[in-house]
Order: sequence, then structure tokens, then C-alpha cells
Amino acid sequence: PIDLIRKYFGEKIGLYFAWLGLYTEFLIPSSVVGIIVFLYGCITMESDIPSKEMCDQEKAFTMCPLCDKSCDYWNLSTACATARASHLFDNPATVFFSIFMALWAAMFLEQWKRLQMRLGYFWDLTGLEEEEFSNACLDLCVLQQDEKEKLTWRDRTPGYLVNVASILFMITLTFSAVFGVTVYRITTAAALSISKNESTRSNVRVTVTATAVIINLVVILILDEIYGAVAKWLTEMEVPKTEKTFEERLILKAFLLKFVNSYAPIFYVAFFKGRFVGRPGSYVYVFDGYRMEECAPGGCLMELCIQLSIIMLGKQLIQNNLFEIGIPKLKMLFRKLKDERTEKKESDSNHSKHPQQWDLDYMLEPFTGLTPEYMEMIIQFGFVTLFVASFPLAPVFALLNNVIEVRLDAKKFVSELRRPDTVREKDIGIWYNILSGIGKFSVIINAFVISVTSDFIPRLVYQYAYSQNGTMHGFINHTLSYFNVSHLKSGTQPDNSQFEHEVIFCRYKDYREPPWSPNQYEFSKQYWSVLSARLAFVILFQNLVMFLSALVDWMIPDIPKDISEQIKKEKSMLVDFFLKEEHEKLKLIESFIMRDKHRNKGETKGRRNRAASFCQFSRSQRGSFTSFSSQHTEV
Amino acid sequence: PIDLIRKYFGEKIGLYFAWLGLYTEFLIPSSVVGIIVFLYGCITMESDIPSKEMCDQEKAFTMCPLCDKSCDYWNLSTACATARASHLFDNPATVFFSIFMALWAAMFLEQWKRLQMRLGYFWDLTGLEEEEFSNACLDLCVLQQDEKEKLTWRDRTPGYLVNVASILFMITLTFSAVFGVTVYRITTAAALSISKNESTRSNVRVTVTATAVIINLVVILILDEIYGAVAKWLTEMEVPKTEKTFEERLILKAFLLKFVNSYAPIFYVAFFKGRFVGRPGSYVYVFDGYRMEECAPGGCLMELCIQLSIIMLGKQLIQNNLFEIGIPKLKMLFRKLKDERTEKKESDSNHSKHPQQWDLDYMLEPFTGLTPEYMEMIIQFGFVTLFVASFPLAPVFALLNNVIEVRLDAKKFVSELRRPDTVREKDIGIWYNILSGIGKFSVIINAFVISVTSDFIPRLVYQYAYSQNGTMHGFINHTLSYFNVSHLKSGTQPDNSQFEHEVIFCRYKDYREPPWSPNQYEFSKQYWSVLSARLAFVILFQNLVMFLSALVDWMIPDIPKDISEQIKKEKSMLVDFFLKEEHEKLKLIESFIMRDKHRNKGETKGRRNRAASFCQFSRSQRGSFTSFSSQHTEV
Repeated sequence: PIDLIRKYFGEKIGLYFAWLGLYTEFLIPSSVVGIIVFLYGCITMESDIPSKEMCDQEKAFTMCPLCDKSCDYWNLSTACATARASHLFDNPATVFFSIFMALWAAMFLEQWKRLQMRLGYFWDLTGLEEEEFSNACLDLCVLQQDEKEKLTWRDRTPGYLVNVASILFMITLTFSAVFGVTVYRITTAAALSISKNESTRSNVRVTVTATAVIINLVVILILDEIYGAVAKWLTEMEVPKTEKTFEERLILKAFLLKFVNSYAPIFYVAFFKGRFVGRPGSYVYVFDGYRMEECAPGGCLMELCIQLSIIMLGKQLIQNNLFEIGIPKLKMLFRKLKDERTEKKESDSNHSKHPQQWDLDYMLEPFTGLTPEYMEMIIQFGFVTLFVASFPLAPVFALLNNVIEVRLDAKKFVSELRRPDTVREKDIGIWYNILSGIGKFSVIINAFVISVTSDFIPRLVYQYAYSQNGTMHGFINHTLSYFNVSHLKSGTQPDNSQFEHEVIFCRYKDYREPPWSPNQYEFSKQYWSVLSARLAFVILFQNLVMFLSALVDWMIPDIPKDISEQIKKEKSMLVDFFLKEEHEKLKLIESFIMRDKHRNKGETKGRRNRAASFCQFSRSQRGSFTSFSSQHTEV
Repeated sequence: PIDLIRKYFGEKIGLYFAWLGLYTEFLIPSSVVGIIVFLYGCITMESDIPSKEMCDQEKAFTMCPLCDKSCDYWNLSTACATARASHLFDNPATVFFSIFMALWAAMFLEQWKRLQMRLGYFWDLTGLEEEEFSNACLDLCVLQQDEKEKLTWRDRTPGYLVNVASILFMITLTFSAVFGVTVYRITTAAALSISKNESTRSNVRVTVTATAVIINLVVILILDEIYGAVAKWLTEMEVPKTEKTFEERLILKAFLLKFVNSYAPIFYVAFFKGRFVGRPGSYVYVFDGYRMEECAPGGCLMELCIQLSIIMLGKQLIQNNLFEIGIPKLKMLFRKLKDERTEKKESDSNHSKHPQQWDLDYMLEPFTGLTPEYMEMIIQFGFVTLFVASFPLAPVFALLNNVIEVRLDAKKFVSELRRPDTVREKDIGIWYNILSGIGKFSVIINAFVISVTSDFIPRLVYQYAYSQNGTMHGFINHTLSYFNVSHLKSGTQPDNSQFEHEVIFCRYKDYREPPWSPNQYEFSKQYWSVLSARLAFVILFQNLVMFLSALVDWMIPDIPKDISEQIKKEKSMLVDFFLKEEHEKLKLIESFIMRDKHRNKGETKGRRNRAASFCQFSRSQRGSFTSFSSQHTEV
């Protein structure tokens, strides 16, 4: 019931709910497609040759140990489960899906533009630049004040510098947090793998990953709160001129910080984890004894997927719903208690037992602006678009969350907050730019996720370039390089190996020259060919998608046809009306003058002049009209 | 003198000259930078190691023959000149320059938007939607007619189909023309190289290239004329509704065809020529006996450069200036002759020896619209932006051409054409979209030219990956692969070789395994690594430039500050003025009524009602005003 909301809460909140509604609507098709893609993964899992090859016990590959000394060689077939699971998200359908989602985002933005136009027309928000204008005046006043206070650039620069500095500091803080979690993961992995207990050893990876992600989540949640405060503080330091600019800058900062904060760990897993492991014999060590961590044999995509789902769900459940509902309730409780205590004291002085309505209203929480609401939605939009290639179920979760979200927000606004004083807004302002920015960014990110993180490209390359019979048989063998155990640095060999027969060659997941080649352990030709295929794919994907979304953008007009028609009609009507009015007026005046004619001639002059002035005025008015009414279609 | 032009010719032509002026202004800095880049090339030419290595006679490389049988092995040092020349355009500065030009384009578009706003304000073109509106009405009328004539979709579809079909046909025609020229080049090259005459043999390449390009140019010029006519014909077949849509569609078609027409040969040279040559022993043959053509040893960039300069200059000189000035003159001459003949007959009947001014005016050519003027400029803009990486002097030539162009156009409009009836236009319409489209397209094109056509990336790769001492020494040797002469197919060996000592290995420009490697003549690891470096560069370049131009777009506001300020002021003034007027009017009326009061009471009623209606009307007016004046800032 957008119109009611608007009537009660004013345009700003009305627009928010309208936007939320449209977004939720748009999530429906995407989540349907997402589910289909997921099901496709489930169905084709059985027929997927690489995972079959990984799982069969006969020709098992002896892999090189995952850590020094304490870890033993291991059979690839033990990683069978993860391989199967990762196929769920790492199949050709996801490529299609990410293209679909990119277009979906473009379509959504276009539709929002149209809806905004329509609402703007029906709620006539067209009279809004007036406020904008008065704002600008205020702007000037403030400017003059500034000049009085000599707030010149020289005074402003330190503020800006502090801004930049502290933002950079925050970002580094985030990264260091991510790094910290990584170190935690590495160390605990090592520690657990040493432990004698068999059961813990067996599921090291699972426990470590899970705990690490949860830590990540907690860190994110805490930092989010901090960053919100910091952004506010920084913006106040900038002394922006008007309310509007203040809000915009605040939003920009807060968004930047929270965006980095929520996505840093995901970016790490997607693009950096397991890239700098080195190779057996010359591993990269974070600090001595602790290797850089590798991805699961099923590829990093699986971990990325876990990371995404946990962070996304956790953030939504805890932050959006628990915080949003819980905190206000607590606050309210607290306030009530306080009030009651005060009541006690005053009880004898005033005798009204039943508190009046306004008292009750006063007891509610004050309205703190829409920014947090938008923020969480935008971040969610990011989850839905940015990494959709690795987690096709994201839209589904988003949809579920929003369906609850709308109700909760509504409830909150109606019953738990004081009624906010209505603000008229023509559009959702800077949020739109942020959205479209995310849309553009998502294209390149998805391109990289598909080409770099997933095994999609290597499979294609193998199938069409290296495979003998054009099938995927022998893909796993092709992706694993040989390593001669004797080349392991002394002290890093696994002690007490379970393997009965002596291990000569162990395998590791990389494209490198085998030990018997002249330049051993260098990147092999396969590596470079696969790499170029990946990059080529990125270029292709990015330009294709950009072209398509440009097409969508071009084909959907911003102003709905009917609206523009109506506006035109109205305009013409208005113009006609004015001219008619003018004529009538003139006639009237003339008639007066006529009637006065036959009375004392002396007076008439003045009036005739007036009449003249009228005609002239009316003309000018008509002129100005044509020029005015012209603006309408611009909107 | 834009304002004068506008006064005399009307806004449309005024805008054209304004645009042309801004464009020419913007060409100045870019051409300055272009010259600097070129000079940089000249200066560093001496110190360029690769071209030195190519030129020194001592360790000369025996290259494989360029054609079967008739061609002999040859020394790379003979291609010294071209290598040196190509360094002029193939140096690091060009990379910088193409980034610069991409930003230049973005900046230009932004500035044009601002200028357009300013002009629109000063010429108050804001009253223009009126016509737009009447247009729309016309639109509706035509629509009704259509409905009478039953021009439903079913009737339109064939028209559209014919459109698409014929456009595709045209494009294929263009490509076939290009292919034809290629074949010509191949065959003549072969023919000439057989000829006994030494001198012809020596400069085969030069003659062939030159002639071929000239043929290309002629073909382009002819096809251009044809396509212009075809586009018109097609658009008429579409039966578009209004004048505006007609023009837009015509422009789109004409542009599409002419664009493909002018750039097809250049694209061929830039991206396809010399890519599908095959390798010695297994060459690719177009038809038997004729190999695919290779690029000059200096890289394809040189040829691209020649192609560009000749086509660009030729097109400008011949088409723009010669056609534009010559044809009208001829036509006028023709008309004069005819008129004089008629004059003769009528001479006895009428006695006015000196023809009147209107006769003279009538003798002039009719005005045929601005489309061709814009078209040539846009195509030129394409030359300046699209392939600027390969030909940094393009802006200079464009600048020179435009300086002449402006004068010529002015002269033409003033003295050689009938004065066109003034048309009011708010903007340059679809041309703007085309411009920005070219701007976006140029980014990716330049990225590919630098990475694929030029030797920039291979050099970097060699310097940082393969070179022993980090210098460019041995680069040439590195880019040339070995070929064992004995592997040449029988009958393709060069008969009567001039080389005294027996040739065992000949070299060819490609990254392939040497004969002594297990998998000989396959693409080597270098090939793949260089390829991936190239693709990586494309991605990097494209995203960097896109980001930067987005930044430019975001930082430069579309409406100049002062203009928006003025608009606001005016608006408020206007509103106040209106309210004042209203008040005065009311007062006046009241006074009338008052004065009538003490006269016959009966009459007054009617008048009072009128007065009431006025107040109410004035209120409505005020209301509408706030809503109207709001639009201004949208513009």
C-alpha cells in the first residue's frame, strides 16, 4: 500500500518501501532461475566425469602432504565429497546465470527509474526543486557565514586530509583483520593436524573453515557498528553546507567502509587464497614453519561458497533482524523503566493514572533515518550480484530475507518508532548511483570469479585442446603435476608415513613441468595456455555483458509512455486555460473602462494605462508560459 | 560568431557550428600532445635497440622466403628502414597517448553538454518542447491516418525485414570489397615478385601497398555515395511517423553503413592481416599457389599507419573539400547555363536586364540538411579516437582539416546555398549518442591495437621475463623462430638462391618450437606467455580507462554553475513578479467593485463572482507556478 505509506510517512519513506517492493519483486524471477541452476547442478552431479575420477579408489593419486612433517601423503579420493559438492556450484549453468544476473541488475535499475518517474508524477513531487532552491539559498547563507568564519579551503583541507587518512586506516584495519583470521586458520590447522586424536585430524578443514568464517562474521558485525560511527564523525568534521550534502557524504563514506568490511574476506577467498602457495620443495611461508594455506582439492569455489552463505545469512539474520528488532525493544524497555521511576516520584503531584496517547508516543524510539535500511539492502544487493557466479542461491536467501524484512520494517515504523516528520524526496538520491556502480562492478567481478576461481575454463581447455577423445576423461590427471619426493627439503618430509610402498612421485594441483623435464617445476605450457584462455574469457564476458546491458538501458525508455503523454496533455490544457483566463480578464477590464467612458473622462487615463500594462503583462506571461511548460518533458 | 550565425541561420545550424568550434578547440591540445609523442618517437629512434639489431649487417638473420619458389631467402637487415619507421609510432609514449585520448573524448563530451546547456539558456531554446509537443500531436494524427491505412505491425514487418536484410547485404558487400582488395594485393605481389626486373622486385611491398590502399579509398568513396542513397530509400520504406524519427533513423542507418565502410579495411589490417599466415612448411593458401599475406617485418603497425593516414587524408581532401565545394559549383554553373537559355527566350518579354536579388538567390543551390556535415565530422572523430594508438598524428590532420572546413562550410552556407529556413533544435540529437558510442568503443579498440598489433607487450615480456641482463638486446633473435629448410614442401623451395653458403635454418617471425624440440613447430611456451600478457594488458587498460572516464563524467557537472544559479534567480524573480501582478489586479478589481458599490447594487453580484473567480484562479496559478518553476533545474 505505497500510497497509504506515503500519505502517513511522507514521500521519503514511501519511496524506500516502493524501492524495496520493486527489488523484492525482481528477486523472484532471479531466485527461480537460481534454484533451477542449482538443481541442474544436482542432476548432472552423477554424470560429472572429473568428480567421478576423483572419487574412484582404483587409480588414486597420491598427493603431496598439506603441511610439513606432521602431514602425511594422502589420497585424492579422500577429497571426493568436496569435489562432488563443488560441482553443484561449478558447472556451465552458473556462467549463464551470472550473465542473466548482470542483465537482471540493468533491467532492475531501468525499471526503478520508470517507477520513480511514475510515483513522482502521481505524488506530484515535481514541485520539489523549490525546496531544493530554498536549500540553495540556505547554502548561500551558510556560505556567507563561512566567509565570516573564514572557512576557506585552507581551513577545510586538514579536515579532508583527516578524512582520507582515517578512511585508509579503517580499510587497512579491515584487511589486517582478514589477515589475522587467515593466520588463525593456518596456525590452528597446523596445530590440529599435529594432534594425535584421529577424529579431529580427519575433519580439520571443516572445523577450521567454519570457526574462521564465524570469527570473520563477528569481526564484520563489530566493525560495521564502529564504521557507522566513524563515518558520521568524519562527515561532521567536513562541515558540509546543506543537509543534503551532509547526508550524501555520510552515505558515501559509510558505504565505502561497510562495503570493504563485508567483502574483504570474500575477495580474499575468491582471488588470493591458494594462489601464492608456491610448490612442493619451495613453499611460501607466512612465518617460519607455517605455510600459506591452500584451497580444498575441489577448488576454492567451494570455500568461497561456504564463506558467502555464512556471512550473508549471518549478517542478515543477526544484524538486520535481531539487531533491528531486539535493540529497539531493549531500549524501549529501558526507557519505560526509567519513565516509570520518574512516574513514581510525580505520581502524587499529577493524578492522571492512564497515560495519554502523546505520552505513549513519546515513549517510542525516535526515528533515526533510512540510511541503515538502505545500507543493508544495498549490501545485500551486492551479495546478490557480485558473487552470484559462485553462489546461485544468493537471490533465494535475499528474497526470503526481504519478505520478512518488509513486514518487520513496516511494523517497526508503525508501532515501535515515533512517527517521523514527513520529508519530501524526489528520488532515492545517491543510492541510485551506488546501485548502478555495484551493477557495473559486478560484471568484472563475475567474469573473474568464473574464469579464475572456478574450474570452468581449465575444463574447456582440456576438453578441446588436450583431451584425446574430446571427453573429460583424464582431466584430473592433467591438472595434477608430478613432484619428485627426493626434492623435498630435508626436515619437511612427512615422518611416519602410512603408505606401505615407497612413494617416489607425489602429485599437486598446478600446471608445472615434471621433474624429468630439463627446466623442472617451471610453469608448463599448459599453465600459460590456460591462463590466456582465462583472460580471453574475461574480456569476452565483460564486453558482451556490458554491451547487452547498454542495449537494455537503451531500449527501455526512462519515462513510461503513458506518463509522458499525460504530462503533455496536462501542459497544453494548462496553457489554454491560462490564455482563456487572460482574455476574459482583458475583456472584463475593457468593459469596466467602457462603462466608465461615458462618465468623467479625466479618470479613465490611469485605468487605460493599467489595462495596457495588463495586456503587455499577459503577453509576457504567455511567453513565459511556453518557456515554462516546456520543462515538463525534461523531468 | 555563433550568435550571429544563430540569428541568421537559426539554432540548428548555430548548434552545428558551435559543436564544430568546440571540437576544433579540443583538437588543439590533443594534436599538440600527438606531435610531442611523435617527436619522442623520432628522438628515441636512434637509441632503440631492436631496430638497431635489425639493421646491423654483421649478425644478419636469414629469413624464410616470403613466397613460394620465386622468392629467395632474405636478410632481415634489408627491412631495416621499415623497422626504424615503425618505431616512430610503436613506442611507450603511444600507450600514454591513447589513454590521454580516451580521457580527452570523455572530457569533450562533458564540455559539449555544458556548452549546449549554456547556449540553450542564452538562446532560450527551453521553449522547444512546445514544438516537440506539437510534433507529438502531429504524431498522433499520422497515427490515426496509419490506422486508417491499416499500417499495423503486420504491414510494417516486411519493411523492417527488408531493412535488416539490405543492411546486412551492404555490410557483406563492404567486406567482400575488402577481401577483393586483399586478393589483388596478394596476386600482384606474387606477379611482381616473379618479374625479372630487379627494381620492381625491390620495392614490391611499397607499390602494392600504395596501390591497394588507393583502390580501397576509391571503393570507400564510391560506396559512401551509394550507401547514402540506400539509407534514405530504406528509411522511406519504414514510413516513420514524424520528421524527427525519420531523420534519426536515417542517420543511424547511414552512420552504420558508412562507419563499416570506412573502417573495414583498417580493421582488417589492424587485427587480421598476417595473423593467419601459418608457418613455413604449412602455409595457409587463399587459393592454390597464393599464400595469405604477411605483415612487414617491422610489424603490422606500420602498414596500419600508412592505411590510416592515406584513407583519412584522402577522404578528407577529396570527399569533404573537393566534393563539397566542387559539386555545388558545377551544379550552379549548370543551372546558370540553363537559366540563361531560358532568359534568352524571355528576354524580349520582360525588360529587366539586371536580375533581381531574389532571382540571384533562387539561382543558388537548395539547402540539403546538416547530416552530411555531421557525418564527415563524426567519421573524422572516429579516426581521431579509434586508432589513435597507431597514428598519433591523426588529431593534427583533423585539426588542419577542420580549420579549413569551418571556413568552407561558412562560405558555402552564406554565399553558395539558398538561406535555409531556420529550424530550432534543442540539441544535436542522436549525434551525441553516436559520439559517446564511439568514445566507448575506442577504449577497447585502442587496448587491442596496443596489445595485439604493436610490439609493445612482447618487448615488455622479453625485457622482464626472458632477457638475461634486463635490456632489449637479443629481442629480435627471441621473436624469430627457427625453421629447418629440409622441412619445406617439395616444389616450394626457392630455386636459384643467391645465398652462397648452404642455408640450413631460416627464421620466421613467430613463437614456435624449434625443429630440434620433440613437438616441433608447435606454439612455444613464449607464445602463450606473451599472449596472456597481451590479454592481461587489454583487461587492465580497458578497466582503467573506463574508470577514469567515469570519474571525469562524474566530476564535471552537466549544468555550468553560473547558469544554474541564474536560472534559479530568474525563476524566483518570475514567481515574485507574478504574485505581485496578481495582487495588483485583485486590488484593481476590488477598487472597481468598491466604486460601483454606491451605484446600483444589482449589478455588483456578477462582478464579485468574477473577482472571486480571479482570486481562486490566481491561487491556482501560484500553485501551478511553484510546480512549474521547479522544472527549470531539471534541464
